[in-house]
Amino acid sequence: MGISLRKARTIIRKTLEKGREMELKPLSVVVLDAGGHVIAFEREDGAAPGRFAIAHGKAYGSVMLGMAGTAQMQRAEGQAYFMAAVNGVYGGQVVPVPGGVLLRDRKGAVIGAVGVTGDTSDNDAAAAMAGIEAAGLAGEI
Amino acid sequence: MGISLRKARTIIRKTLEKGREMELKPLSVVVLDAGGHVIAFEREDGAAPGRFAIAHGKAYGSVMLGMAGTAQMQRAEGQAYFMAAVNGVYGGQVVPVPGGVLLRDRKGAVIGAVGVTGDTSDNDAAAAMAGIEAAGLAGEI
Amino acid sequence: MGISLRKARTIIRKTLEKGREMELKPLSVVVLDAGGHVIAFEREDGAAPGRFAIAHGKAYGSVMLGMAGTAQMQRAEGQAYFMAAVNGVYGGQVVPVPGGVLLRDRKGAVIGAVGVTGDTSDNDAAAAMAGIEAAGLAGEI
Amino acid sequence: MGISLRKARTIIRKTLEKGREMELKPLSVVVLDAGGHVIAFEREDGAAPGRFAIAHGKAYGSVMLGMAGTAQMQRAEGQAYFMAAVNGVYGGQVVPVPGGVLLRDRKGAVIGAVGVTGDTSDNDAAAAMAGIEAAGLAGEI
Repeated sequence: MGISLRKARTIIRKTLEKGREMELKPLSVVVLDAGGHVIAFEREDGAAPGRFAIAHGKAYGSVMLGMAGTAQMQRAEGQAYFMAAVNGVYGGQVVPVPGGVLLRDRKGAVIGAVGVTGDTSDNDAAAAMAGIEAAGLAGEI
Repeated sequence: MGISLRKARTIIRKTLEKGREMELKPLSVVVLDAGGHVIAFEREDGAAPGRFAIAHGKAYGSVMLGMAGTAQMQRAEGQAYFMAAVNGVYGGQVVPVPGGVLLRDRKGAVIGAVGVTGDTSDNDAAAAMAGIEAAGLAGEI
Repeated sequence: MGISLRKARTIIRKTLEKGREMELKPLSVVVLDAGGHVIAFEREDGAAPGRFAIAHGKAYGSVMLGMAGTAQMQRAEGQAYFMAAVNGVYGGQVVPVPGGVLLRDRKGAVIGAVGVTGDTSDNDAAAAMAGIEAAGLAGEI
Repeated sequence: MGISLRKARTIIRKTLEKGREMELKPLSVVVLDAGGHVIAFEREDGAAPGRFAIAHGKAYGSVMLGMAGTAQMQRAEGQAYFMAAVNGVYGGQVVPVPGGVLLRDRKGAVIGAVGVTGDTSDNDAAAAMAGIEAAGLAGEI
């Protein structure tokens, strides 16, 4: 099962709604498919111009490694040179912190990832989970 | 005047609607701001996974050069090595064909660009123009 | 409101004047617009040849992240792998230390950034602020 | 003899003045030293955001190859793959068209280059020559 554009839109809208409800800074949200390719992205008014790359980096590392943001952060904290090397092999496109959330189907297979950036990493992840749940999917922070 | 996320969404939705009305292949649409940074993107179900980069490349070159897709194509056809060199200085991110549409404000200043890909370059551009007009903006193909 | 070339020139001249007044080493100063693109740059006689990239890196990271040099440095000191990853997604173009100063308009929106390099990071930032104030703008160190 | 910042400023100002006199589109002008490193740059209001990279590419190729824009263009037209390869070894930073002007001292040694972009390549080069002559230097188009 892939993620339809319809579902990606729901994830993004509900993530942004949650951000406003939590009174977070302007958020940027990307949804990637199981190959790490962009399905949809939105950057709220007032967010810094470079936010696509950060949101993408959180989600891209999650899909490519099959490891969500929190697990990547733990690895980076324990073995920084490993995540630096990972970033090298993936062309510098990995941002290993929370806000990168893996999407799984009912059998647990990875079907994509969501990347959120704009506030603290933990708030980014919380907003993402609200969007993912609203779309009827399971997320791994 | 910048392009709000609300306007970017309108451009994307109306471009996709126009594509279905014209019975085009699945489209992908990006909206960039005046600095060439992504505001919003959507890829329709059934489109190839790499479409973000093509849509982005059409719009990015338009903003960075201040030259829409048709003008870039003419330059590429007349002086191929020049557009190849331009691509070099912009990190390989320029796709010089129609479907990259400049957005201008009432005074004619560039405020961003739209990039559409999926069907023929001319159809991509026609769909983009429908989206841009629906958002009350002026486009240069 | 964008930064005109006239204002960028004022920022650069007054930053260099302040540097001479403070008896700093030869400075290099860049002014970027709200999209992170170069408006103007000057490198004083006697400065090392590679100073453009350092000045640019300080200002570029500031614009792209919406975070001035001091805040970037704090993040780099607390979570080094995060700023390393950020550098990856921005093509290695971020130098996260003081001397990268955000420019804001009266409503607080980021309209660009100044990057200064040549002396200590703190002196670089102090000289930048003199230039920014002389141009009638507000800077965030 | 190197190019002082004072001379670089003169080149830039007089190039821009010439452009307005010739009623050209907004110009961007860079001055590089004998090592191909940026001394100064200015982008006129209304120029496209990506003009630094084009101006730099014209001047950089001139210095690195010791060959001005016109000679580079002739080589590109006669042997496109050679200039493509040159671009590869210089990291994609070469734009082989007029507007890249070599600066020579009285003995004919290359001391830097000027890069101008914004109008036609020939007009760019003509404006550059006016700036170079105003600074008392000899230019090779």
